[in-house]
Amino acid sequence: MKSRPSGRAPDELRPIRITRRFTRHAEGSVLIECGETRVLCTASVEETIPSFLRNSGKGWVTAEYGMLPRATHTRNKREAASGKQGGRTLEIQRLIGRALRAVVDTKALGERTITIDCDVLQADGGTRTASITGAYVALVDAVNSLVRKGTLRDSPIHGQVAAVSVGIWSGQPVLDLDYAEDSEAETDMNIVMNNGGGFIEVQGTAEGHAFRREELDALLNLAANGCSQLLARQLEALNED
Amino acid sequence: MKSRPSGRAPDELRPIRITRRFTRHAEGSVLIECGETRVLCTASVEETIPSFLRNSGKGWVTAEYGMLPRATHTRNKREAASGKQGGRTLEIQRLIGRALRAVVDTKALGERTITIDCDVLQADGGTRTASITGAYVALVDAVNSLVRKGTLRDSPIHGQVAAVSVGIWSGQPVLDLDYAEDSEAETDMNIVMNNGGGFIEVQGTAEGHAFRREELDALLNLAANGCSQLLARQLEALNED
Amino acid sequence: MKSRPSGRAPDELRPIRITRRFTRHAEGSVLIECGETRVLCTASVEETIPSFLRNSGKGWVTAEYGMLPRATHTRNKREAASGKQGGRTLEIQRLIGRALRAVVDTKALGERTITIDCDVLQADGGTRTASITGAYVALVDAVNSLVRKGTLRDSPIHGQVAAVSVGIWSGQPVLDLDYAEDSEAETDMNIVMNNGGGFIEVQGTAEGHAFRREELDALLNLAANGCSQLLARQLEALNED
Amino acid sequence: MKSRPSGRAPDELRPIRITRRFTRHAEGSVLIECGETRVLCTASVEETIPSFLRNSGKGWVTAEYGMLPRATHTRNKREAASGKQGGRTLEIQRLIGRALRAVVDTKALGERTITIDCDVLQADGGTRTASITGAYVALVDAVNSLVRKGTLRDSPIHGQVAAVSVGIWSGQPVLDLDYAEDSEAETDMNIVMNNGGGFIEVQGTAEGHAFRREELDALLNLAANGCSQLLARQLEALNED
Amino acid sequence: MKSRPSGRAPDELRPIRITRRFTRHAEGSVLIECGETRVLCTASVEETIPSFLRNSGKGWVTAEYGMLPRATHTRNKREAASGKQGGRTLEIQRLIGRALRAVVDTKALGERTITIDCDVLQADGGTRTASITGAYVALVDAVNSLVRKGTLRDSPIHGQVAAVSVGIWSGQPVLDLDYAEDSEAETDMNIVMNNGGGFIEVQGTAEGHAFRREELDALLNLAANGCSQLLARQLEALNED
Amino acid sequence: MKSRPSGRAPDELRPIRITRRFTRHAEGSVLIECGETRVLCTASVEETIPSFLRNSGKGWVTAEYGMLPRATHTRNKREAASGKQGGRTLEIQRLIGRALRAVVDTKALGERTITIDCDVLQADGGTRTASITGAYVALVDAVNSLVRKGTLRDSPIHGQVAAVSVGIWSGQPVLDLDYAEDSEAETDMNIVMNNGGGFIEVQGTAEGHAFRREELDALLNLAANGCSQLLARQLEALNED
Repeated sequence: MKSRPSGRAPDELRPIRITRRFTRHAEGSVLIECGETRVLCTASVEETIPSFLRNSGKGWVTAEYGMLPRATHTRNKREAASGKQGGRTLEIQRLIGRALRAVVDTKALGERTITIDCDVLQADGGTRTASITGAYVALVDAVNSLVRKGTLRDSPIHGQVAAVSVGIWSGQPVLDLDYAEDSEAETDMNIVMNNGGGFIEVQGTAEGHAFRREELDALLNLAANGCSQLLARQLEALNED
Repeated sequence: MKSRPSGRAPDELRPIRITRRFTRHAEGSVLIECGETRVLCTASVEETIPSFLRNSGKGWVTAEYGMLPRATHTRNKREAASGKQGGRTLEIQRLIGRALRAVVDTKALGERTITIDCDVLQADGGTRTASITGAYVALVDAVNSLVRKGTLRDSPIHGQVAAVSVGIWSGQPVLDLDYAEDSEAETDMNIVMNNGGGFIEVQGTAEGHAFRREELDALLNLAANGCSQLLARQLEALNED
Repeated sequence: MKSRPSGRAPDELRPIRITRRFTRHAEGSVLIECGETRVLCTASVEETIPSFLRNSGKGWVTAEYGMLPRATHTRNKREAASGKQGGRTLEIQRLIGRALRAVVDTKALGERTITIDCDVLQADGGTRTASITGAYVALVDAVNSLVRKGTLRDSPIHGQVAAVSVGIWSGQPVLDLDYAEDSEAETDMNIVMNNGGGFIEVQGTAEGHAFRREELDALLNLAANGCSQLLARQLEALNED
Repeated sequence: MKSRPSGRAPDELRPIRITRRFTRHAEGSVLIECGETRVLCTASVEETIPSFLRNSGKGWVTAEYGMLPRATHTRNKREAASGKQGGRTLEIQRLIGRALRAVVDTKALGERTITIDCDVLQADGGTRTASITGAYVALVDAVNSLVRKGTLRDSPIHGQVAAVSVGIWSGQPVLDLDYAEDSEAETDMNIVMNNGGGFIEVQGTAEGHAFRREELDALLNLAANGCSQLLARQLEALNED
Repeated sequence: MKSRPSGRAPDELRPIRITRRFTRHAEGSVLIECGETRVLCTASVEETIPSFLRNSGKGWVTAEYGMLPRATHTRNKREAASGKQGGRTLEIQRLIGRALRAVVDTKALGERTITIDCDVLQADGGTRTASITGAYVALVDAVNSLVRKGTLRDSPIHGQVAAVSVGIWSGQPVLDLDYAEDSEAETDMNIVMNNGGGFIEVQGTAEGHAFRREELDALLNLAANGCSQLLARQLEALNED
Repeated sequence: MKSRPSGRAPDELRPIRITRRFTRHAEGSVLIECGETRVLCTASVEETIPSFLRNSGKGWVTAEYGMLPRATHTRNKREAASGKQGGRTLEIQRLIGRALRAVVDTKALGERTITIDCDVLQADGGTRTASITGAYVALVDAVNSLVRKGTLRDSPIHGQVAAVSVGIWSGQPVLDLDYAEDSEAETDMNIVMNNGGGFIEVQGTAEGHAFRREELDALLNLAANGCSQLLARQLEALNED
C-alpha cells in the first residue's frame, strides 16, 4: 500500500478547526479549517424571501460560494470581473443550499432568508465539503441569535449536517482527499450526511476509471465514518462558550 | 403498495425509442424518446480544440444542453433571451460531457472536438439521463463517420455509457421516474454506468427525506438493471442499417 | 434559363407539411416543413402582459426565434452560451411578432400574452418565412383552446397571415429559395401577406446587385402567388381533425 | 385631403442640411439635418479587418448606430448602461452597413475597415434613413482622405446611396415622415436606393393596416423621387470646397 | 519657461462657449465648448425616484457620461456594443452626479429625478470638468422650467458649481490642460468648486511624479482662479435670453 | 470639542497590524488590520502582460478589489452573482493599481504582471486606504521572491507607498475615520503618499458641506503625518522574519 502524501491513514481526516465569530457583523461567522483548506462561512439573516415563496408562509435558506482569486496554486480569474459565476461555482452553491435546507423546517423559520456565504480563503482540496460542514455551524449561530432576540420561539433546525470527500487514490479507498491526492484520484465522491446516518447527497464522479460496486460500498463506509467525526466536531464547537 | 401513475412495475423502464439520422446536417443525430420525454442529440465534429488542450495532442468531447421554452408544462424563459444559462443547465451539460469522456480515448481522437448538443423537445422527467443515453449513440455515429472517411483509423471509443434515474416514490424504490413521480419523489438519483457494470456518475439528492443505506443499495440495484437494458437498446439501434 | 438546383419551376414552392400537436404541453404546437427546412412553432398562453401594456385592457402576441446549434451545415455557437441573442435573431423574432399582431385584435384577446416560440430543428433556407407560416397555425390552435375553454367568447384573430421568400437567382426571379439558391442569390426578399392580398411586410435586400423596379414587380407577383398557396395549406391543416 | 402637420406637400422632403467636417478627428464627419432630425455620422478608418475576412484580401465597411438618451421626447435608457444594444438598434446598424457596402468594392478597399458611427443628436422621425444619407457623405470623405494620402490609388466606391421613408398617413401616401406623422402612420416603409435608380433595401411594415399593391407602387414612386433629390444634395455637399 | 502648445499663459483658460437650447426635447440642453472640447449636456426631468429613496420625500440628481466613439483621435469601442460602461466612465459620471447634488436641496426638489446626460461630441482634454460646468447650466434650465410651470414654487438649487483641470506640465503648474498637455503632464488634478469658494471635489493623480505640497498649493490657487471665471461665464450664459 | 466614538485623539491612527504570509499560495500574502477593518492582500506573479503592453518590454502592476458579501453591517449582493463589478469597486481598484505603479519601474519588472487582490474580510471604514497600505507589503514580498529565485537581479520598486483617510467630523479635522465617523462625516478625503513626502493621489469629496482652503490644508497635514507612521509600520513588518 502506497502511503498518503500527508502520511495519514486511509480512514483518517485532516485536522479540523472550527472558529466561531471569526468576523463581527454576520449573525453567524465561522472559519473552518480542514488541514490547509480554509473557508469563511457567514450566515446572514434578512427579513425578505425570494419571489417564488411569496405568500407561502415559508422562509428560505440559500448559499453562495466563492474562491478568492489566489486561494489556489495559480491565480484564478475573479468571477466578479469576468461577469459571471462559472458552472463549478453554481453547482457547489446549489449543493450547499440543498444540504442545509435538508435540516431546516422553512415553515418554522418564517418569512425570512438566511444566506450562507462560503468564501474560500485558501484551497487544498475538499472546499465544498468543508463549506457545508462550516456552514452548518454558522447557520446554527444565526438561528440561535433569532431565538435569543425572541424573533423565533424555537429553532427551526431539526437535524445536523456535515460533508466529506472520499475517493480511490492509488488504488485504495481514502477519506478526506487533499489537493495532492485529489488531483491524482481516479475517482472522487462527495457525501453529505445527517446525524441520523441518512444520506442527503451522494455525488460520485469517475472521469477516468469507473468504480465497481464494492468500491462504492467501501467509499460509503469511509464517508459515514468521516461524517460522524465531523458531526461530533460541530457539536464541540457549538458547545464552546 | 401504491401503483405507479403510469401503471409500470417498480423496476420497469418507460418505452424507449432511438431514431438515428433524425436531422441531416450533423455527423450524428439521434432523437431519443423515453416515454413522453424527447431529446434531440446531435454530435458535431470540429477540427479545433479548446485552448487548455493546445499542444497536448488530445481531442475533446463536450456537451451542451438546452430545453425548448415550451418543452414543459408551463413556458420557461428562453436562456438565450435571459442572457445566461442557469445553474441547472450548466450542471447537466457538465454531467453529460463527463459521462461521454469516460468512454473516449481523447488521445486517439486526435486534435478535434466533438460537441454533443442535447435539446429537449418535450420533457416528462429524466431529461438528463435520456440525454446521456441518446448522446452516446450520436457520438458513435459521428466517430464512425470519421472512421468511414479515413480521418481516423480506429474508433477512440472504448466503452459504452447509458444513464437512468431512480428514486424513492411513495415509500418504494422505483426505476426511471416520469414527471408525475419526480415531482412527488422524496429522493432522486441519477446513475451513469458503463457496459462493464462500473459506475461513472452517482448523483443522489434528498432535499426532503434523507435516504438510508439500504435504500441507497436498493436504488443502485434498480439502476444497474435499468442501465443494462438501455445499453442493449443502444446496441440494437446502432446495429439497425 | 438555368434550372434550379432542386429542379423546381421558378414559381414552384417546396413541398409543405404542417403537423399540428407535434409536442404535447403547448396550447398550440406545429411542426412546419418546407422542403428540408423544419421549424417547431409552439404557442404558449400566459395570463400576464408586458409592463408597457399595464392598464391598457390589451393583450400581446410576441415571438421568439432560435436555431438549434446544429440545424445548419456547420455548428453555430449556442446563443444561450454566448450570453446574447445576435442581431439576426432579434430581427427575425421582431418580424414574426409584428406579422402575427397584424391579424390579432389585442383588445379582444384581453390581458394575456401569447408567445410563439419558433425553433429551427433543421435549416435549408427560408426559416423566418416558414416560422411565420407555421406560427400562424400554432396561434390559431392556442386561441381556439381559449375559446373552447370559454375563456374567450370569440377568436380575436381577424385574418390569416403567411410568408415566403423570393429572389433573383441566376438572373431570374424565383419563389421560395432553398439554401443552395439563397447562398448564391443576388438579391433576396421576404414577403408577409394576409388573406386579403395585403402586404404586411416587404423586406428586400440587395447587398450585391440592386434590383430594378421591374424585377421588384416580378418578385412581388411571385410572392403573392406563393403566399396564397401557403394560406390555403394553413386552412387545410386547420381543418384536419 | 388632410394637410400634413408640417404643411408640406405629400411628395415634399423636409429641408436637408449636410455639414461636412462637423467634428475634427474623424476621417469623415458629417452632420445631417432632415428637418428637426439631426444625426452625426463619422467615418473612421482602421488598418484591421474582422476575423471572418482574415486572408481574404478584402476590407470591410460597417456601421454602428446610437441615439443620445435625450434625443427624443422622453428620455430613453442609455444602451451602454443597460448593458446591451436593443433589437431596434442592431437592426438599424445592420441596415446602414449593408446599404453602404452595396456601393463599395471591398477588394479595392484593401485590408482595412471603415466604421461609420451614426449618432442621433435629435430625433424627429426618419433617423435611420437620415443616417444612411449622411453616412454616405462621411464615407466618401474618409475614402478620399485615403486617396489624398496615397494609401489608395482610386476610390473603391462605385456608386452613390441615399435613403428615405415613405408611408400611408391619413389615408394618403406621403414622403419623408416626421415624428408627428410617423407615430400615426398606418404603414411605413424605408427605401434605400442607388444613383442608378436601383433598390438596395425595401423595408415596409404594416402593423396596423396591410397595404395594397397599388399603395405599394405609389410609395415606391414617391421614394424614388425623394431619393433622387437626396442623391443630388449629397453631390452638392461633396462639391462644396 | 517652455510655452504652452496653445500659446496660452499658464493661468489662462481656453475660450469657453456655452450654447443653451442646443437640442429641443430636453428640459435643459447645453453645448459647452472649452477650446476644442465639446460636450452636449441635457437635463431630463422624470417623475420617478430611484428605489433607495422610496418614501423619503426626496428627489435625486444623477448623471450619465458617454463619449461618441470618434470623439477622440482614434476610434474607441462603443460602450453599448461592448456591453458595459468602463471604469473610467463610471468614475466620471459618479463625479458629475456628486458635484451637482452638492448644490441641490433634494428635499425641496420633491420626488422626481433629474438626469444629466453628458455626451462628448469632440474631445481635447478636460471632458469631465467641461461636463460639470455645462451640466450645471442645463440643470438650472431644467429646474427653471419646473418653476415656470408651477410644479415647483422655488428653485431647490442653492449654489453654483463649476470645474476645471490643473496640472504640472513641463515642470510648471498650468490651468485647463488640453489634450496635448494632458498626455504629457506629470501630474493632473480635477477641481470642482462652488461659488462660495469651497472645494466640492479635489482629485489629483500622479502616476509618474508625485507632487510636493507647494506644487499642490500652486495648483489649488490656479484652480480657484479658473473656477471663478467659469462661474462667471455660467451666469452670463444664464442671463442671456 | 466632541470626542471621537473610539476615544482617539484627532490625529491618532487606529491600531495597525500587518501579518505577512497569511495564506500560503500567493507570492505575497498580507492581512492588514486597521482597527476593525481587515483586508487580505495577495500578490500574484504571472508571466504574461496585458495586450496593450505587447512588445513594449514593460511589465504591469494591477489590482482587483472585492468585499466579501457580509464584510459589512448588512449583507451586500455578491458582485460575481450580479454579473458585474459596481462603479465603486472599479474606482477603488483603479486607485490601488495607480498607487502601486507610482513606485514601480515597470521596465525593470520585465514582461510580467503582478496582480494584487485586495479582499475585504471585515469592513469598518477606510478599506481602500488599508488596501493600498497592505498591498504595498504584499507587492514587496512578491518582488523579493523573484529576486530570491534569480528571476530579477534587483527590485524594480523604487519607493514606498501608503494611504490614509482624513475628514471633517463634527466640525473638526480627524485622521483615519472608522465607519461610525465616516457615515457622519461632512467631508472625506483619501490621501496616498510616498516615502519622499510626495502626494500620489489626493481624493477629497464633499457631498454635503464644501471644504474651505484652510480645512483642506489641515487635512493634508493630518494625512502627511498619518502616512509617515504607516510607512514606518510597513518597514517594521517587512523587517520581521
